Amino acid sequence: MDHEVADLPSGPLDIYRKKASFNWKDMLLFLDGEEILAFKHHVYRTLENDPLFARRPGEDVPMEKMRELTFLRVKQLFRYDFITKEETMANPWKTVVLSDCLGMYDWAMSAKFFLNKGMFGATVANSGSGRHSRYVENTEDMTTFGCFALTELSHGSNTRAMRTTATYDPSTQEFVIHSPDFEAAKFWVGNLGKTATHAVVFAQLYTPDRVCHGLHSFIVPVRDPKTLLALPGVLVGDIGKKLGQNGLDNGFALFHNVRIPRENLLNKTGDVTADGRYLTPFKDPNKRFGASLGALSGGRVSITRMALINLKLALVVAIRFSATRRQFGPKDTEEIPVLEYQLQQWRLIPYLAAAYALERFSKDIFMNFVEFQIGQIMRDNSDRQAEMGKEIHAIGCSSKPLGSWTAQRGIQECREACGGHGYLAMNRLGNLRDDNDPNCTYEGDNNVLLQQTSNYLLSWLQAKLHDGVRIESPLHTVDFLDDFRRILGTKFKATSMEECMDSAVPLAAYKWLVCFLLVESQKRLQQQRASGKGEFEARNNSQVYYCRSLAIAYIEHDCLRRFHEQTTDEDTPAGLRPVLRKLCALYGLWSLSSHMATLYQGNYLSGREPAELVQMSILSLCSQLKDDAVSLVDVLAPTDFMLNSPVGCADGQLYKNLWSTVMQGSQVLDRPSWWKEFCSDKPAVGSLRPKL
Amino acid sequence: MDHEVADLPSGPLDIYRKKASFNWKDMLLFLDGEEILAFKHHVYRTLENDPLFARRPGEDVPMEKMRELTFLRVKQLFRYDFITKEETMANPWKTVVLSDCLGMYDWAMSAKFFLNKGMFGATVANSGSGRHSRYVENTEDMTTFGCFALTELSHGSNTRAMRTTATYDPSTQEFVIHSPDFEAAKFWVGNLGKTATHAVVFAQLYTPDRVCHGLHSFIVPVRDPKTLLALPGVLVGDIGKKLGQNGLDNGFALFHNVRIPRENLLNKTGDVTADGRYLTPFKDPNKRFGASLGALSGGRVSITRMALINLKLALVVAIRFSATRRQFGPKDTEEIPVLEYQLQQWRLIPYLAAAYALERFSKDIFMNFVEFQIGQIMRDNSDRQAEMGKEIHAIGCSSKPLGSWTAQRGIQECREACGGHGYLAMNRLGNLRDDNDPNCTYEGDNNVLLQQTSNYLLSWLQAKLHDGVRIESPLHTVDFLDDFRRILGTKFKATSMEECMDSAVPLAAYKWLVCFLLVESQKRLQQQRASGKGEFEARNNSQVYYCRSLAIAYIEHDCLRRFHEQTTDEDTPAGLRPVLRKLCALYGLWSLSSHMATLYQGNYLSGREPAELVQMSILSLCSQLKDDAVSLVDVLAPTDFMLNSPVGCADGQLYKNLWSTVMQGSQVLDRPSWWKEFCSDKPAVGSLRPKL
Repeated sequence: MDHEVADLPSGPLDIYRKKASFNWKDMLLFLDGEEILAFKHHVYRTLENDPLFARRPGEDVPMEKMRELTFLRVKQLFRYDFITKEETMANPWKTVVLSDCLGMYDWAMSAKFFLNKGMFGATVANSGSGRHSRYVENTEDMTTFGCFALTELSHGSNTRAMRTTATYDPSTQEFVIHSPDFEAAKFWVGNLGKTATHAVVFAQLYTPDRVCHGLHSFIVPVRDPKTLLALPGVLVGDIGKKLGQNGLDNGFALFHNVRIPRENLLNKTGDVTADGRYLTPFKDPNKRFGASLGALSGGRVSITRMALINLKLALVVAIRFSATRRQFGPKDTEEIPVLEYQLQQWRLIPYLAAAYALERFSKDIFMNFVEFQIGQIMRDNSDRQAEMGKEIHAIGCSSKPLGSWTAQRGIQECREACGGHGYLAMNRLGNLRDDNDPNCTYEGDNNVLLQQTSNYLLSWLQAKLHDGVRIESPLHTVDFLDDFRRILGTKFKATSMEECMDSAVPLAAYKWLVCFLLVESQKRLQQQRASGKGEFEARNNSQVYYCRSLAIAYIEHDCLRRFHEQTTDEDTPAGLRPVLRKLCALYGLWSLSSHMATLYQGNYLSGREPAELVQMSILSLCSQLKDDAVSLVDVLAPTDFMLNSPVGCADGQLYKNLWSTVMQGSQVLDRPSWWKEFCSDKPAVGSLRPKL
Repeated sequence: MDHEVADLPSGPLDIYRKKASFNWKDMLLFLDGEEILAFKHHVYRTLENDPLFARRPGEDVPMEKMRELTFLRVKQLFRYDFITKEETMANPWKTVVLSDCLGMYDWAMSAKFFLNKGMFGATVANSGSGRHSRYVENTEDMTTFGCFALTELSHGSNTRAMRTTATYDPSTQEFVIHSPDFEAAKFWVGNLGKTATHAVVFAQLYTPDRVCHGLHSFIVPVRDPKTLLALPGVLVGDIGKKLGQNGLDNGFALFHNVRIPRENLLNKTGDVTADGRYLTPFKDPNKRFGASLGALSGGRVSITRMALINLKLALVVAIRFSATRRQFGPKDTEEIPVLEYQLQQWRLIPYLAAAYALERFSKDIFMNFVEFQIGQIMRDNSDRQAEMGKEIHAIGCSSKPLGSWTAQRGIQECREACGGHGYLAMNRLGNLRDDNDPNCTYEGDNNVLLQQTSNYLLSWLQAKLHDGVRIESPLHTVDFLDDFRRILGTKFKATSMEECMDSAVPLAAYKWLVCFLLVESQKRLQQQRASGKGEFEARNNSQVYYCRSLAIAYIEHDCLRRFHEQTTDEDTPAGLRPVLRKLCALYGLWSLSSHMATLYQGNYLSGREPAELVQMSILSLCSQLKDDAVSLVDVLAPTDFMLNSPVGCADGQLYKNLWSTVMQGSQVLDRPSWWKEFCSDKPAVGSLRPKL
């Protein structure tokens, strides 16, 4: 089937491509499969062939224009309808691949598209009932355009403290939506700035008896779909420029006693009768809790993937650049590619390994999430389903930090590794960094989310120690912890580089590390409680060096474990296993190297040799992988049009592509319109200096 | 003298201000002194009162407009003439303070101003002779506008490989400046994009006998000062949008046999006679080398400071935000400032300590550089002067990485610590990050520069081991290395947190660390050589974990040493010493904590206790300093106008300032101009989907 994947253009990158130890097309087919590959190329080609999606690398587009363009492109996506509902059901992974492709083009466009269809539409579908189906249908053909309004100006993480109210008025059978003051304005809401006609608004539900029933969601019309003018009582607008994703119009809304029909309450978790009584269908709060945690995880699992896409694109740019940029050399006459330098390898190749690890991991956890979702759809009320909800929540709350931070640091390293050319907007590394950045923040600040994961792990230890429960979870991410006492007795065993360059070595170290940090976190918490601290304070004072590190180590372990399995799986083609094994060992050792102090502290390592072995193994793996690096990014790379970075083009014609992009810039050779300001009206030096 | 510093406006930050352990005005006077304080406030006030400098936080200004505005503002700076030449001579530090102030406003403006006056003017003055003085004079009143053209499209770090040529033609007594192809186009040159009339161009000098005499600099007119049109044979233009600093017009120039008079050669290091013979005044290449290294250090020493300014501004924003943003709390009814959380303290306060350390350090090394410069002006030909040149070069090559990376990471942490509001352009953290970023790259890529520093240190060890030389340098940054054998025998001694929270503890550890890395780097190099590697390869293969770490540890040690001296100095006011001591200990321990693996590896630490002591001391110091944090940033903060960040205003009215800035945004409440695109012309779903 190789013939279906087009060859890459010949050029300066051939030197490395010829040295690769594996066939890049085999890797592509192994990772994506034919159907997905064909689908990706269909999306790439479609966007490239449509003039509405034309763009110039590094162009300076005003925010207002970006919002317009993004809107028009989203509209066009409705016409292309890349995936029908039926196709999504048949292969949910395809939606992720579509998101990957749209995001590679522009995350703001992708967000604008999915916030309406996915976030608004799905929330209404999942939290509402039959009476709300027309809202879902109306988003499908853009009759209306939706948004999801939870965050307020003064509250993000603490969702329970939201202050918008929805008070039921039985006399008219309406809810009155009200923002007590501007600090309670809904804020940061994607699509709300310019285009949303409807919002899912989260508000404290009050029945006529003045009882507050907590946060509920309501469909609130905010703009007239015929005119896009704000509806009476709604002060709605654009929060302004962001660090990135400026094609997306994030907005605010302040509600002044806005009345909506009773039916607009999304009534899955609670309803109000016509005469104003509150009803809830839930009986077992624990199961409800697990299920609702799980449902929130879809966003975080997706963000893990989104961050990975950014990291991949940055690596394509930086590694192709490094393979073609020559600087210095052993002789004065001949310069060598900067990829030949140990330092450059060490800066970039571990991130390449991380990208391969996260490729496997992000797909795997998405499949876990799908499994959970199917259970929900099937109304699976089992303990296992509730447990899976908790576990997928723990995964999502740490996979998002792992993915977004790895991408954040990796993109920055790529930016710096490309020197000045990395600072030129046209090469796209800035755009990737800026667009990746909110992945660290939305759907929960990374540091705050990690606490959810450590709480989950601590509760397992607690259950084992106090109730003798066996630690075993539906997705098996914690099963090894049941054996923590034995694992804590293990030590680092590799005594040669050859032994050390096997991913089993860092995997074993991670098992010890997670067990160690789990037990230490538990001790720290107990010390805090013993010293009279309340639970709130005790938890807060156990984050740094303990619970936070625990959650990070847990998810790094899990990412490594899944990648390790892939590299040892019989189904993985034999021709690809050697390079995947190297990548896996490198990822494991490199990740582990940020925990060396803890490994020494807990005596898992001792003496000089282990740290040196780990370091020398990392360098050796980088060096072994540098000839594969170009082919490894060829596998990750979309088409040049999608990548949109002259120094990252597949032909490797670094300077030709850069120079021609510069020369195609707007007014590049023109003198400035304000040239007379230079030529006449010379400043009188010191004329405005205060006289003494 | 307190009355001269205005009180800060009362508001929500008062809670913390009242808890501060020191008087912030005393700290301000101690750090700046009255003259500098008055000067700063004069600059702040002047810019604020001039409508040309008016701006709105987060506004979306097109690149072309930013370049125009920046030009007009620079012109206005000539009128204000904040520092005369005489004042610069009397107090060179004042130029740095002016750069601080202009940079706080906008680094692109600062760069545009100083590139003409400092970089072009100073290079002509230092590398030329009497015959060039009119060029210098012409920049002083903007008759001409200059730039510095070294980097080419395909060469940055490897300056010796520049390919632009300057061939002397005795028949007309002219040099012919020529770019062999576009890869040799001068590229990245600040001011060249739109405004420069003259460039200092670095080119390979060829005499008529076809002998190449290496890189020399020439004054080349590029645009007609009367029209700003390019001169014949010069293809000059704008390289386009960058990640930041877009007010500065970086440009390119391609020369097609451009003829300039013989006199335009900057002839300090070499000249060509009318008939085409090459002459050089230098006899002792070693002294010349030391001196020329030193001369290059001014830029890097300045960049260290520029990065610090960015870090300071980011900290002002993030800490004032953290002291006023409330989220969660021990009770449901009451929320606490996020600064009360251990995690938030640990994320921000070490960077605050770093800012205080770098404040002292950046001033100190500037004074070292001034001392060196005075020697140059006095034509000091002593060995000491040449040694000082090498030492200041080693300092600059590592202080720039230390400063720029600390700022890069610190700003990113500040951005994330402010959550979503940190991602809003108006709060300025993105601007600071983007404007700081090139500090990692220009005047030498950080990683490449660090090699200069490690080479310097290794040559000292070599001299001691082989020639029995005593290690002792004019600025004393390496003196302790003479004692390396004894130091390598020392161990971590603190046994309680109280002992550990003294900056002498990390200082001693750093001494050991530098010695250890020096000896290990030397060994690694020898191993590489012994295994048959050439010098080029041996050096390259000894960077990661050895030479690179060595250079970083050296400069961190030096920064800590100087800060430690300040905190123990009798001249430091007694009322300020306690808080400075805490900051110094925190900075030292926190920096050191990134080297823990090496400390264990070399057995400076062993067992569990030391790492725990260091960690617990860091947390304790963060907690002790959190009540001082607001006052500590009040000391660093410029006026609100300069800071230009609603969430960072001195009154602490976080939401009021944010909300009013949002409401003052452009077209914030307007429906989009393209509203009809939503309301009519609805997409037919799937209409563009390929038919099967």
